[in-house]
Amino acid sequence: MSASDLDLFRRRLAGLVDPGVLDDDDAVRVRHAAAVWSCLTEPGDAVAGAAIAALGADEALDLALRPPASADERWRDGLRRWMPRLGGADDAFDAARRIGARLVTPCDPSWPHALDDLGAHTPHALWVRGDAGALRSGSAIALVGARAATTYGEHVAADLAAGLASSGVTVVSGGAYGIDAMAHRASLTTGGRTVAILAGGVDRFYPAGNANLLGRIVDEVGAVVAEVPCGTTPTKWRFLQRNRLIAAAAAATVVVEAGWRSGSLNTAGHAAALGRPLGAVPGPVTSAASAGCHRLFREYDARCITSAGDARELAGIGASPATANTEGGRVDDRTRMLDALSARVTRTVSQAARRAGLDPDHAAALVALLELEGLARRVDDGWRLIGSGARV
Amino acid sequence: MSASDLDLFRRRLAGLVDPGVLDDDDAVRVRHAAAVWSCLTEPGDAVAGAAIAALGADEALDLALRPPASADERWRDGLRRWMPRLGGADDAFDAARRIGARLVTPCDPSWPHALDDLGAHTPHALWVRGDAGALRSGSAIALVGARAATTYGEHVAADLAAGLASSGVTVVSGGAYGIDAMAHRASLTTGGRTVAILAGGVDRFYPAGNANLLGRIVDEVGAVVAEVPCGTTPTKWRFLQRNRLIAAAAAATVVVEAGWRSGSLNTAGHAAALGRPLGAVPGPVTSAASAGCHRLFREYDARCITSAGDARELAGIGASPATANTEGGRVDDRTRMLDALSARVTRTVSQAARRAGLDPDHAAALVALLELEGLARRVDDGWRLIGSGARV
Repeated sequence: MSASDLDLFRRRLAGLVDPGVLDDDDAVRVRHAAAVWSCLTEPGDAVAGAAIAALGADEALDLALRPPASADERWRDGLRRWMPRLGGADDAFDAARRIGARLVTPCDPSWPHALDDLGAHTPHALWVRGDAGALRSGSAIALVGARAATTYGEHVAADLAAGLASSGVTVVSGGAYGIDAMAHRASLTTGGRTVAILAGGVDRFYPAGNANLLGRIVDEVGAVVAEVPCGTTPTKWRFLQRNRLIAAAAAATVVVEAGWRSGSLNTAGHAAALGRPLGAVPGPVTSAASAGCHRLFREYDARCITSAGDARELAGIGASPATANTEGGRVDDRTRMLDALSARVTRTVSQAARRAGLDPDHAAALVALLELEGLARRVDDGWRLIGSGARV
Repeated sequence: MSASDLDLFRRRLAGLVDPGVLDDDDAVRVRHAAAVWSCLTEPGDAVAGAAIAALGADEALDLALRPPASADERWRDGLRRWMPRLGGADDAFDAARRIGARLVTPCDPSWPHALDDLGAHTPHALWVRGDAGALRSGSAIALVGARAATTYGEHVAADLAAGLASSGVTVVSGGAYGIDAMAHRASLTTGGRTVAILAGGVDRFYPAGNANLLGRIVDEVGAVVAEVPCGTTPTKWRFLQRNRLIAAAAAATVVVEAGWRSGSLNTAGHAAALGRPLGAVPGPVTSAASAGCHRLFREYDARCITSAGDARELAGIGASPATANTEGGRVDDRTRMLDALSARVTRTVSQAARRAGLDPDHAAALVALLELEGLARRVDDGWRLIGSGARV
């Protein structure tokens, strides 16, 4: 690699990385290579991912730029996919610099190592606007759901996001209309951190109707993130691949509202495949907008999430609430004795014992306890309940 | 046992059992004993249950009427509970006969052997109005829920009950207001079989506001059933014990709507304890009336029930529907190629391949397939999508 190559790399990285990085040739090389790989491949390209995991981004890139005659068929297939895009890298670096985006690669301190669980599908780099370390700060929970959300779904999304964000949890979502937008918005409203992971480049906020919201995330607290470089349009493939990043970046994924075929079920599938805890919010069975959530209960054994506390518990954040007693455990002979007494009619102990089906001596002991508790009083030669009887 | 004892037993059983039974001394003795036990004990009396299971109802009753000097403390405790009620048995038989009820004991052909799973808590006898064999005919599913039901809960209860009853499933419930009443009513409306299991005697329909409904069950198709004899009032204890019968009588229990402390959670607990499949219907997390159902998902791993088909599947009745494909599996290189083409702009294969990140040769093959599928057409030296592009 020549000095002029390194000069080019430094020019490309200027403004995108910490200034100190530019003083270190090796650091420049590996970051530049990671960024170039993000320009060459479609998200989730396992051939590139395996080479980078084995050799590092810079050696793998050398192998792509100067392939040996011994390169195998998979690598040569890869080159035919990747090389036509090489000329576009310059524009991607320039566009990122213009909008003040940052480049975060696996060797940077702010890299979210949760993404490494994706193995050969780990992104080569992230392009980030806002807080470059947002995905490293504290715990993150993904709240996702349908664009075609109902008022109910948006209400619950806002409630969960506000509860999570205000307790220091980073709310990760996809920046889409509906549930995603409400999750981001409610996080911002509470001053909490939120991260939108996009399917296209961070230079062009998608959907356009959420541009203001995404801009607020960048300006206030959190980040807008993509693995694809600036200038990349969102496509169906890229949305599906983006979903794996949402699932991997968060400690748990909660689907708030989703139709039977909602794309957010794909995010849920990624979370399950990664072994990340998966939750879903129930809704009316009469609402098609909740059918996907109910499907997750059945097909993915998703946990039922009804509050921010449930979501934190799902993700293993904070203490789990004490398990409440079940109704059955609270019923005993005392209850049977309460049943057998009346506030209106005086009954002797033996009458009450017969009604309760209890031994009269035991019944006498119980009624004495009830008297001590202020629940029964003696009247003539019998007993009555005081105040609210325990009758069903 | 004297001839005059047998005469008494026959008089008591007359009209309550099949006439043929009265010709057989042993059959008379055991049925009479079972009925008397139901008069002596509170539901779920395990001491009586164990003795009856070990000796049979008639020998166990002999042991109660003529206890040996060697009887242990538990038995003597039992006698103190049971014997004060002995004098009430005559009235119970008379009342049952007056209202046309039938006595069903474990030795009768119409006994629902599902109840035997209750072990020492198996009821000694059932007092039945309507079809004495209703709990033996076909499969049964319990639909239970809160008295304080919402419009939503009642709607779902009606929908599930109608779907089950019209497919030949017996709908079991507790005859209460709210979910129970709607489950019974919808079953009757479709001409299906439904069984109400009461906490008090079948001579007095409880609650009074459901007397017409319970009367319709008796007159049309199904039964009203209790383990306690006529003249017994419903108490909190008896409601909780009655719940174990609902859970045991049905192949599966579905809680349709229940608050956080609803009594129907007790039925669910019995179903779980019996190893019976347990389901719950989700509802809005904003509805307190569904909080108990959501609790069942979390604490009892209840299955999410959204339709009568789900409930049948839960109970193992009928075939399970084919598992639908997940969204993720449907996306492939073809989708990426569709993403890369446009209906408005003509693109060459190499342009489209670059956009899709695919090998140009592979892209050429894919576009040819899309042409065959009628999704793409050649324009000049490039390609366009026809009609609805597959863009997200």
